[in-house]
Amino acid sequence: MPTIDPDRLLSDLHTLRQFGAYETGVHRPTFSPEDVAAREWFAERCREAGLAAQIDGIGSVYAVSPAPGPKVLAGSHLESQNRAGWLDGALGCVFALEAARAIAADPELAGCGVDVAAFCDEEGHFGSFIGSRSYVGLLEEEEIDRLANRYDGTPLRQALARVGLAGRPRVRHEEGGHKAFFEAHIEQGDTLISSDLKIGAVTAIVAIWQYRITILGDQNHAGTTSMARRKDAGLAAVRLLAEIDRRFPALAAERTVWTTGRIALDPGAPSIIPGRAEVLFQFRDADDAVLARLDAELRRLVAEADAAGRCSVSLEVLGQSRPALMDEGLQDAILAAAEIHCPGRAIRMPSGAGHDAQYLARIMPSVMLFVPSIGGISHHWTEDTAEEDIVLGARVFTDAIASVLRA
Amino acid sequence: MPTIDPDRLLSDLHTLRQFGAYETGVHRPTFSPEDVAAREWFAERCREAGLAAQIDGIGSVYAVSPAPGPKVLAGSHLESQNRAGWLDGALGCVFALEAARAIAADPELAGCGVDVAAFCDEEGHFGSFIGSRSYVGLLEEEEIDRLANRYDGTPLRQALARVGLAGRPRVRHEEGGHKAFFEAHIEQGDTLISSDLKIGAVTAIVAIWQYRITILGDQNHAGTTSMARRKDAGLAAVRLLAEIDRRFPALAAERTVWTTGRIALDPGAPSIIPGRAEVLFQFRDADDAVLARLDAELRRLVAEADAAGRCSVSLEVLGQSRPALMDEGLQDAILAAAEIHCPGRAIRMPSGAGHDAQYLARIMPSVMLFVPSIGGISHHWTEDTAEEDIVLGARVFTDAIASVLRA
Repeated sequence: MPTIDPDRLLSDLHTLRQFGAYETGVHRPTFSPEDVAAREWFAERCREAGLAAQIDGIGSVYAVSPAPGPKVLAGSHLESQNRAGWLDGALGCVFALEAARAIAADPELAGCGVDVAAFCDEEGHFGSFIGSRSYVGLLEEEEIDRLANRYDGTPLRQALARVGLAGRPRVRHEEGGHKAFFEAHIEQGDTLISSDLKIGAVTAIVAIWQYRITILGDQNHAGTTSMARRKDAGLAAVRLLAEIDRRFPALAAERTVWTTGRIALDPGAPSIIPGRAEVLFQFRDADDAVLARLDAELRRLVAEADAAGRCSVSLEVLGQSRPALMDEGLQDAILAAAEIHCPGRAIRMPSGAGHDAQYLARIMPSVMLFVPSIGGISHHWTEDTAEEDIVLGARVFTDAIASVLRA
Repeated sequence: MPTIDPDRLLSDLHTLRQFGAYETGVHRPTFSPEDVAAREWFAERCREAGLAAQIDGIGSVYAVSPAPGPKVLAGSHLESQNRAGWLDGALGCVFALEAARAIAADPELAGCGVDVAAFCDEEGHFGSFIGSRSYVGLLEEEEIDRLANRYDGTPLRQALARVGLAGRPRVRHEEGGHKAFFEAHIEQGDTLISSDLKIGAVTAIVAIWQYRITILGDQNHAGTTSMARRKDAGLAAVRLLAEIDRRFPALAAERTVWTTGRIALDPGAPSIIPGRAEVLFQFRDADDAVLARLDAELRRLVAEADAAGRCSVSLEVLGQSRPALMDEGLQDAILAAAEIHCPGRAIRMPSGAGHDAQYLARIMPSVMLFVPSIGGISHHWTEDTAEEDIVLGARVFTDAIASVLRA
């Protein structure tokens, strides 16, 4: 079996956290100077491991093993959410690099190799999974022309030019080049940590069905308009959301989640009856049947609110992704490796968050490995994982890849 | 009886609507060039009527009759809400001026006079009723130092200096100077128009009890945080507001109104569970007992939500004004005058909106007269009143004042 180097692994992770260090986390938005420096440092670290590394025309790092034989692709992303955790993304990149190093050094795996990828902008500062979508062939030039930074409006083309990537070719997946894709990640929830488990083998990345609910009433004076005469768009929103709250639990599956992220009342003044309300609502599940059931119920409740109330209520689909199923054989490989390093402390589980693996799964067998998140904290600088869990995770990750390469 | 001049009255109103004309309404925010021009024009028009007019140090127009005998004060305000109606405020000022002219010309009322006031910034671009509060002695210099334009942040002191009013004295009410205060206004609701009534004699200006409800939960990832583990501040807000919606109707009086003007979820992103929610909630009534009952129920529901749920819920009082009772004798004077001009088509009614009269009522007997609003529309440029209703309203207004002067 290949042998990882825990000190090298942790040292690389701690070096990475210095790029854009913020409190105990990092602030490393896509194409910020800190992010670009991290990409260049990571590419160089891959070269030191004997891989041929480059940053491609969309900003992803690709490091190719010189091995002639069977190969696996592994990786994650390097940029962070704003003022977020040090391991989200970085852990998967360094696990991939460590696996590449350990496997290259293992005489039993001679001829086998691990290619390493750090897909650009998984965190969506400019778009939605542009790095992995570019790699699998789902990102057109026209979309790149259109995209801009969601915080400051900088066009993606301008950002690419500023960091010297304009005109550089984008790396595309080659058919048959890899047996599988492996992505390691912190869990971002508390399923593992709360049950003292160490490894999650991901069964599926849930689909996100995102909606905008728009309610139109009549803006009017909050003092002179009687309750009977009002068409209060805000009140109609509250009633609809209360009804969703009442109805969804009976229709949801065990791990279904649903969220109202935004309620905006227009004009939003204390003494004006809102004439317009806008609600952002989503649900997530890995099961198509559950998704369809919740969609039907949402449509029923919206139609009911529209028919019964004084306001018009309409529903707009902003996104309905498909659940991305992870390969069962690869899950088995992770669980088998875990059974050696931490017997009885690994489970299969879905991922509630989106990851690059959901796009890689469209072109090759793919899987994710989760390590525990302390307190289940995610997208916050206090996010963390115990070092022993990181090292254990890297061992299982590397062994699972090795078993696939050998198979 | 004094005789008003309908053409002069309507001509003055149509001249005023040219200052800041916007669609069929006006955009005349306090101390905008159009507003200043309107004030100067109105003061000059008062001088032409034989009154001694000035604009004081807070921006209000005061026009004093030379009559030696009994006097009444009448007026309203000249600035408008943004892109709002042509009559809101302006009607009350021109009614006051027309009454002053008609009464000055009536030999039977020799020695009696009407002083005219256009109180500055009733619409609250800078503060809350600063003109009328200044007049009744409830506006300190320190508050003027603090106030700023709510849209662009310009300090009130700077705005006063820009329009040449800095350092000018503020006019204060003189004890015993007036027998009563009269304010005419459009109804801003549909009580009169929907029952084909012509005149409202206002019984009270309702109190506004305004609250901020703050809910603190845990901001977290909308995909990886199970429903069981969430502390969703937005959901807690929806549940509380749905409970208010369920409970308030049984406790409210016939004309009570309650409004949620704003719901702000933080951070307001589609895939983040809101960690904080802020709700602006108010209710209005003219009855202290109703106000106290609703306040107690709101506190009970907030405490229940705080105790039962996973989020902390707190209530902050932003304002609890007192209902301003209008003088019954003055209401009688309005109804008696209406009985002559439009028998059977006047009623007593409360005002759901705030007006300068609520502050004048603190220092002298005060009353308001409402004319119908077409469609009950208010604070929108489509606000309007039929010309025959305007003329009728001015007749009743002037006669009511005359009867008080004669009494």
